[in-house]
Amino acid sequence: MRTGTWLIGARGSVAVTSMIGALAVRAGLTAPTGCVLESPALRERVRPGIGDLVFGGHDVTSVPLEKKAAELAGSGVVPAALALAVKDDLAAVEQNVRPLPAAATQAETAREIAADLESFRRRHDLERVIVINVSTTEPVPPPHPAHASLADLRAALSGADSGVDPGVDPGVDPGVDPGVDPGVDPGVDPGVDSAADPAADPAADSVASPVLPPSSLAAYAALSAGCPYVDFTPSAGARLPALDTLAREQGLPYAGHDGKTGETLVKSVLAPMFAQRNLRVRTWSGVNLLGGGDGANLAQPGANAAKSASKQRVLPETLGYLPQGETRIDYLEDLGDFKTAWDLVTFEGFLGTGMRMEFTWHGCDSALAAPLVLDLARLTAAAHRAGRAGPLPELAFFFKDPLGEVPHGLADQWRVLVDFVTALTPEPTP
Amino acid sequence: MRTGTWLIGARGSVAVTSMIGALAVRAGLTAPTGCVLESPALRERVRPGIGDLVFGGHDVTSVPLEKKAAELAGSGVVPAALALAVKDDLAAVEQNVRPLPAAATQAETAREIAADLESFRRRHDLERVIVINVSTTEPVPPPHPAHASLADLRAALSGADSGVDPGVDPGVDPGVDPGVDPGVDPGVDPGVDSAADPAADPAADSVASPVLPPSSLAAYAALSAGCPYVDFTPSAGARLPALDTLAREQGLPYAGHDGKTGETLVKSVLAPMFAQRNLRVRTWSGVNLLGGGDGANLAQPGANAAKSASKQRVLPETLGYLPQGETRIDYLEDLGDFKTAWDLVTFEGFLGTGMRMEFTWHGCDSALAAPLVLDLARLTAAAHRAGRAGPLPELAFFFKDPLGEVPHGLADQWRVLVDFVTALTPEPTP
Amino acid sequence: MRTGTWLIGARGSVAVTSMIGALAVRAGLTAPTGCVLESPALRERVRPGIGDLVFGGHDVTSVPLEKKAAELAGSGVVPAALALAVKDDLAAVEQNVRPLPAAATQAETAREIAADLESFRRRHDLERVIVINVSTTEPVPPPHPAHASLADLRAALSGADSGVDPGVDPGVDPGVDPGVDPGVDPGVDPGVDSAADPAADPAADSVASPVLPPSSLAAYAALSAGCPYVDFTPSAGARLPALDTLAREQGLPYAGHDGKTGETLVKSVLAPMFAQRNLRVRTWSGVNLLGGGDGANLAQPGANAAKSASKQRVLPETLGYLPQGETRIDYLEDLGDFKTAWDLVTFEGFLGTGMRMEFTWHGCDSALAAPLVLDLARLTAAAHRAGRAGPLPELAFFFKDPLGEVPHGLADQWRVLVDFVTALTPEPTP
Amino acid sequence: MRTGTWLIGARGSVAVTSMIGALAVRAGLTAPTGCVLESPALRERVRPGIGDLVFGGHDVTSVPLEKKAAELAGSGVVPAALALAVKDDLAAVEQNVRPLPAAATQAETAREIAADLESFRRRHDLERVIVINVSTTEPVPPPHPAHASLADLRAALSGADSGVDPGVDPGVDPGVDPGVDPGVDPGVDPGVDSAADPAADPAADSVASPVLPPSSLAAYAALSAGCPYVDFTPSAGARLPALDTLAREQGLPYAGHDGKTGETLVKSVLAPMFAQRNLRVRTWSGVNLLGGGDGANLAQPGANAAKSASKQRVLPETLGYLPQGETRIDYLEDLGDFKTAWDLVTFEGFLGTGMRMEFTWHGCDSALAAPLVLDLARLTAAAHRAGRAGPLPELAFFFKDPLGEVPHGLADQWRVLVDFVTALTPEPTP
Ligand SMILES: NC(=O)c1ccc[n+]([C@@H]2O[C@H](COP(=O)([O-])OP(=O)(O)OC[C@H]3O[C@@H](n4cnc5c(N)ncnc54)[C@H](O)[C@@H]3O)[C@@H](O)[C@H]2O)c1
Ligand SMILES: NC(=O)c1ccc[n+]([C@@H]2O[C@H](COP(=O)([O-])OP(=O)(O)OC[C@H]3O[C@@H](n4cnc5c(N)ncnc54)[C@H](O)[C@@H]3O)[C@@H](O)[C@H]2O)c1
Ligand SMILES: NC(=O)c1ccc[n+]([C@@H]2O[C@H](COP(=O)([O-])OP(=O)(O)OC[C@H]3O[C@@H](n4cnc5c(N)ncnc54)[C@H](O)[C@@H]3O)[C@@H](O)[C@H]2O)c1
Ligand SMILES: NC(=O)c1ccc[n+]([C@@H]2O[C@H](COP(=O)([O-])OP(=O)(O)OC[C@H]3O[C@@H](n4cnc5c(N)ncnc54)[C@H](O)[C@@H]3O)[C@@H](O)[C@H]2O)c1
Ligand code: NA
Ligand code: NA
Repeated sequence: MRTGTWLIGARGSVAVTSMIGALAVRAGLTAPTGCVLESPALRERVRPGIGDLVFGGHDVTSVPLEKKAAELAGSGVVPAALALAVKDDLAAVEQNVRPLPAAATQAETAREIAADLESFRRRHDLERVIVINVSTTEPVPPPHPAHASLADLRAALSGADSGVDPGVDPGVDPGVDPGVDPGVDPGVDPGVDSAADPAADPAADSVASPVLPPSSLAAYAALSAGCPYVDFTPSAGARLPALDTLAREQGLPYAGHDGKTGETLVKSVLAPMFAQRNLRVRTWSGVNLLGGGDGANLAQPGANAAKSASKQRVLPETLGYLPQGETRIDYLEDLGDFKTAWDLVTFEGFLGTGMRMEFTWHGCDSALAAPLVLDLARLTAAAHRAGRAGPLPELAFFFKDPLGEVPHGLADQWRVLVDFVTALTPEPTP
Repeated sequence: MRTGTWLIGARGSVAVTSMIGALAVRAGLTAPTGCVLESPALRERVRPGIGDLVFGGHDVTSVPLEKKAAELAGSGVVPAALALAVKDDLAAVEQNVRPLPAAATQAETAREIAADLESFRRRHDLERVIVINVSTTEPVPPPHPAHASLADLRAALSGADSGVDPGVDPGVDPGVDPGVDPGVDPGVDPGVDSAADPAADPAADSVASPVLPPSSLAAYAALSAGCPYVDFTPSAGARLPALDTLAREQGLPYAGHDGKTGETLVKSVLAPMFAQRNLRVRTWSGVNLLGGGDGANLAQPGANAAKSASKQRVLPETLGYLPQGETRIDYLEDLGDFKTAWDLVTFEGFLGTGMRMEFTWHGCDSALAAPLVLDLARLTAAAHRAGRAGPLPELAFFFKDPLGEVPHGLADQWRVLVDFVTALTPEPTP
Repeated sequence: MRTGTWLIGARGSVAVTSMIGALAVRAGLTAPTGCVLESPALRERVRPGIGDLVFGGHDVTSVPLEKKAAELAGSGVVPAALALAVKDDLAAVEQNVRPLPAAATQAETAREIAADLESFRRRHDLERVIVINVSTTEPVPPPHPAHASLADLRAALSGADSGVDPGVDPGVDPGVDPGVDPGVDPGVDPGVDSAADPAADPAADSVASPVLPPSSLAAYAALSAGCPYVDFTPSAGARLPALDTLAREQGLPYAGHDGKTGETLVKSVLAPMFAQRNLRVRTWSGVNLLGGGDGANLAQPGANAAKSASKQRVLPETLGYLPQGETRIDYLEDLGDFKTAWDLVTFEGFLGTGMRMEFTWHGCDSALAAPLVLDLARLTAAAHRAGRAGPLPELAFFFKDPLGEVPHGLADQWRVLVDFVTALTPEPTP
Repeated sequence: MRTGTWLIGARGSVAVTSMIGALAVRAGLTAPTGCVLESPALRERVRPGIGDLVFGGHDVTSVPLEKKAAELAGSGVVPAALALAVKDDLAAVEQNVRPLPAAATQAETAREIAADLESFRRRHDLERVIVINVSTTEPVPPPHPAHASLADLRAALSGADSGVDPGVDPGVDPGVDPGVDPGVDPGVDPGVDSAADPAADPAADSVASPVLPPSSLAAYAALSAGCPYVDFTPSAGARLPALDTLAREQGLPYAGHDGKTGETLVKSVLAPMFAQRNLRVRTWSGVNLLGGGDGANLAQPGANAAKSASKQRVLPETLGYLPQGETRIDYLEDLGDFKTAWDLVTFEGFLGTGMRMEFTWHGCDSALAAPLVLDLARLTAAAHRAGRAGPLPELAFFFKDPLGEVPHGLADQWRVLVDFVTALTPEPTP
């Protein structure tokens, strides 16, 4: 039951924390804290297990995994001793991480991505490969008529306007580590680059905009290659009608969007509480202060807007109305990989009495996200084995902006998840 | 379907806020915000409605309801205009509030309580009367052998050690308002009095301790008179084997304990979140700062211990283990009727990464409690009509320390409640 | 020693709270809590006293003071009983509040303003009149060459580009109360109006921009009429070289800018603490959530930018460097007149250890500002009597963005203030 | 100008962090962040410098410094690389750390302590030796008549009731590390021991109580040996009339009490802010949650009471009255060396309007304390050189419970400190 876990953004914080963690759990060096499928309620049910996952992926940077691991250890995300202990295993994963292809047309790029997936599967004799997007959040892509139909999409991908891939800054060879400074990698982050120089940003220029944003191109390539696709980011991914058709044609499940790890997680339990108690929420305001690579990218207006939209959805869905207030995201480099979110909720009770609640969440985003990536790889693999095709709304528990008509309160999502796992594996498998 | 709602502690903050609120809702002067049975999910299902409730009760103080209403308006719990608008209706309720009987034996006191209930029912031609305890929290009572069997209890109540009723300070005539100062009523609060002068406190003296604490005597009298009993406080109430037997014999339901209105409510959604995400809670510490009559009483070690025990139960029940940390309650007179609770949760995620969350809850306790008192009166009446006898674990949603083997996460309790309501009234009744 | 206190923005929250408070203190109905000159350290020193202040002012709205007082009572800023008790005195003040003049040229408008001041002084036989700007915060005005010299300014004010006064929406007769709804007064707030319809906003159009923004025109008029000028807002006010010349020529003191009442006040004691302890502040982020008229205006980008700049200044001035982070202001109508600010400070200690502090401030802005307005009127009057002309840097204690080369830590500002008061009045005057 | 720094409690967290830090600063491996004498305002003025300090000390445990350093690195107080880099220098310090003497009489114990000091001075050719108490906080000692006069004290120390030294559990040889578990050292902590077994605790038994508590015996010995004494803890130390006489006779300065590092530091700037603004503080409540060795000890009622008293003093001293509320200290082992304090302040402004502020402080106590220990060693040495004898109230800036009639607001204390430094060293010394 060896299962490939192919990460788009394989050299990023979430990806490398996932790899180190899976390797350390497999080696018995750490407990699977934070892995939902290892909680008492679900333990021993879902196959593949963590130890069955084999990692690989694409990235546009070439910073070695080991260097990234050292950074993560330096900033307290990963214990230094653990990073050291899985050094050799991580070196083996490094062999499976490839530069993101960038060909003359998006059709050709997709073929090269698919070829990488196929060669990974064969090389490691994998039962299946799950592709998970953990790369930099993209701005909301401009609409394109070809998004609506698979036939149109196929035609467009080979066409004239598909030659510019916004995922790769053309001035940088992504296969070469461009600098020695571990913290600053000027060629790496297309979002940040484009903000610094908007004129050079193809995404900002609707004329030059390619047919598919990188996440959707990855989804297209994955589904074409017979691989289920999961989007852990708010990017478009498989969320286009044409790609839904493709997934169903191929008999492949897909899931997303945007891993729910911090403030939104808390909202998804507090908002139902107010609703069930029939307390009227007047205002709900939030501020997220974060550093790290994700933070740097979210400081860009486009990505920030995509993320904020994703974060706010839980309130109207669970309360039945949208209270006043906004969710802000501010980048502070000096905060490093830990994020602090503060929310203020003002509400009205019996006889109009005004009351208030505030919370501060201080979490390590990568440490919260990584175990969910492992869960998602396992669940999507099990769903594929069980013959599921199309979106997996049962995984709403994991996402800020879940696919399908699903409950948005965490407790209801939990129940759906437990039922889903039970249906997949009626008996606990020791 | 006129239903009596007999409040033990009828002159207290929760009681008077409940009365004013019900009268104002009935008069169409305010929305039933905070009433769970009026939330979109449950609206129009449970009979009696709020407008069907008729109020009465016992208390050991004789501060007029109108005076208490003015206090509540002064401290921002009730809008002054609303208190004014229901003045006449409240004066009518005043006719139904009686001094707590205090006879030579507890058996005789119980008979007098029952007689008051019976006369209330007859006077208002009520279908049934629900007795709800919203009086001062008692210390945990000393065990007594007669608690275990109804026959023994009946014998003991007429016996020698039943002559001192700790619910009434013998030096004060509870029928006479002892002072003009609205804020200080020296004869009112037996808990506070007894602490000031422990020698005069029968409850502090295990020799003189009566068979039943006041809450259980009230439950005994209510059940004997054919009235369901609900305990909104952490006191013993109906929670004794002898009283359970009595309830079943009489075919009467009972419910409790300790209304869940603030910090514990929040805990009951956050703790399941940590459990479902398999995050390990290391410490959970809370401090509750409150003023008001309840606060003054909870400053007494005995009552404080009873309340703190009730508050902490949710953690082991939902997490499966007890994290380090305590819940403290501090009385600050100057805080008035608003309570501020602060909780710090430290937890461990993937690879042992330490994280933390804190929340501050600033609520008006009486405004949070009163609508639940209305819900409980209605639900217990409906359960009685449906033939239920014994404890009502389906009402766990409302309590910090619910009866029976029940879920402790709020979301599960909510589901149980919705099912209960649906079973009681299969069709919404307009 | 009767002293005029002429408020620009006399019908706003700060103004009316100041008036009610001064009247109530004079009548012995309330203690002067929040008045710095009434603290034990400074009590009984500065003449005029609160009871010597006589109020008047200009505004662009005509909402009656009594109506505003009722609003303030309704939202908990002023006790309803107090508003009632000073009703007659407030009606007397109403006679002194006049619509802001709006003539063909700014020179002519200034003359009409000065005439109003003069007639106020004569009517009430006042020793002097202090003009204090508590009107809506303006956007930063475009630079104008005439700001640099008094002679140029005088010439320009009578010239061609001075005919449009951005302080008054030309479509609304400010002398007529345009509506009955107390909460929504569409003609009232020029900042809000102009945002709703940017095309109609003269300030947004640099071509049509008049020589002076309204606050500076008020300062020009006040100084011309022999009245000291204080700016409690971040607007330009007297802060132009030409107006400084005018003040000195006239022998008049002036003070400002931007009353320091909430988050910035706290910053001004915490930042020196970090500096003195040689702890390195890495990030300092703040969010201000507020409703009220001021909040509505600060939701406009121009005013928001002016205010945020003013708020942030304390950090570099006291720390010696600018940590990462921003101060945000968000408008939430439902918060009403209370403001919640949250700040997160991350700092580094010995051996690079990272630590953090956060604070939440929940204050009523008008209740914090109003007593300072009374202090400023008294201090500026005393300074004038003592012969001071030009800026009063000794009043830095009161301002977010004080004039002159002054300390920015609150404690140092306090010392300067105490010395200033002592110099003004060597002996306490009983 | 080599200056001895003799630490009572030399193997504790504060002591070892001080040593590592001083060694690392001397080696140029880290910046002196947190050292007040290295802030821009005071830099380069006080001799000795950090590099001139030579460490030694007494302790009742024998856990090696290197082991403690490893613990501190493990819990994030000290960077692991730094601990490694100063390993050899720390091994040299280890030679100067001696078991606390425990002789038949306290007089004899004091002589042995003094002998250790003398031999340290000679061995390292030190200009002077400053003794600083950073050992476990003691309960408030029972009063003893001999505390009032030096002659009586000398007599009593050699007398009958001086044979039991509460600082050392007689059942344990303090020179031998009694266990292998680094975290639990049963013979070490007299406070903890005594609480666990009150019958065996001489301090709990007023009959057996020795003349002086350990901190005062250390002060007596230090002063007798010609060494200035500083108490960084709330223990009695030199704060007895007899010891004040001794210090003056010997021409020696002394300082204390209780290093001000966290919540109290913040209080000492916020409380003056409220006072200066004439805002009335109604309640001020605090809770301190901490782990570490100090936390374990402060969980003992005696030590807790001593500390809480010390922490609360700032409020009445700066406000002029004592608001309602308490400061609580709770021990949570799982919090480790970081402490979280939360304070709620409710206050009243103009016209009685109620407002509130809360803050959370999350600091590493040892990292906050250690640089102050270095400052205190340097300042006390400079004061001694300048001929100062008796208490040093000018060092109030550093203490929660300072000696003498001093200001309690931090800003005033800072000014006093700057003047003191300026008087000691009129010119900056490069
Ligand atoms: N950490 C969390 O809690 C969390 C929660 C929800 C969503 N997310 C999302 O997960 C993603 C990863 O977060 P992170 O903290 O690891 O960010 P990161 O910046 O550390 O890593 C992103 C990686 O993606 C790579 N990348 C960029 N464009 C690419 C492309 N077109 N193709 C392939 N690789 C590309 C970057 O080079 C980088 O290595 C973000 O989109 C974030 O918003 C994270
Ligand atoms: N308000 C909440 O959010 C909340 C939540 C859970 C539980 N409770 C419990 O509800 C109870 C009432 O709270 P409150 O704020 O109204 O308190 P309160 O002090 O205002 O009122 C209590 C009333 O009970 C009366 N009383 C005392 N002993 C009595 C006796 N033996 N028989 C009859 N009456 C007696 C008192 O005279 C008083 O009028 C408390 O026990 C409290 O712990 C309240
Ligand atoms: N409340 C505080 O704590 C505080 C602190 C610092 C500064 N301020 C400043 O004080 C000012 C007043 O605040 P507020 O809460 O009373 O606001 P508000 O909106 O209630 O009142 C402002 C008043 O100014 C009037 N006005 C607008 N333009 C005018 C003009 N050109 N001439 C004369 N009047 C005009 C408005 O009609 C309104 O009545 C604001 O600028 C605010 O930023 C307030
Ligand atoms: N860290 C801070 O921020 C801070 C602030 C103010 C005061 N303090 C005080 O500083 C002291 C040290 O704190 P810590 O965190 O290092 O504690 P710790 O428990 O780590 O160290 C105390 C040391 O004192 C030793 N000791 C106990 N009794 C002794 C005795 N009679 N003679 C000599 N040594 C003895 C112990 O063996 C231990 O090694 C405590 O009293 C604490 O209250 C600390
Ligand atoms: Na908070
Ligand atoms: Na907080």
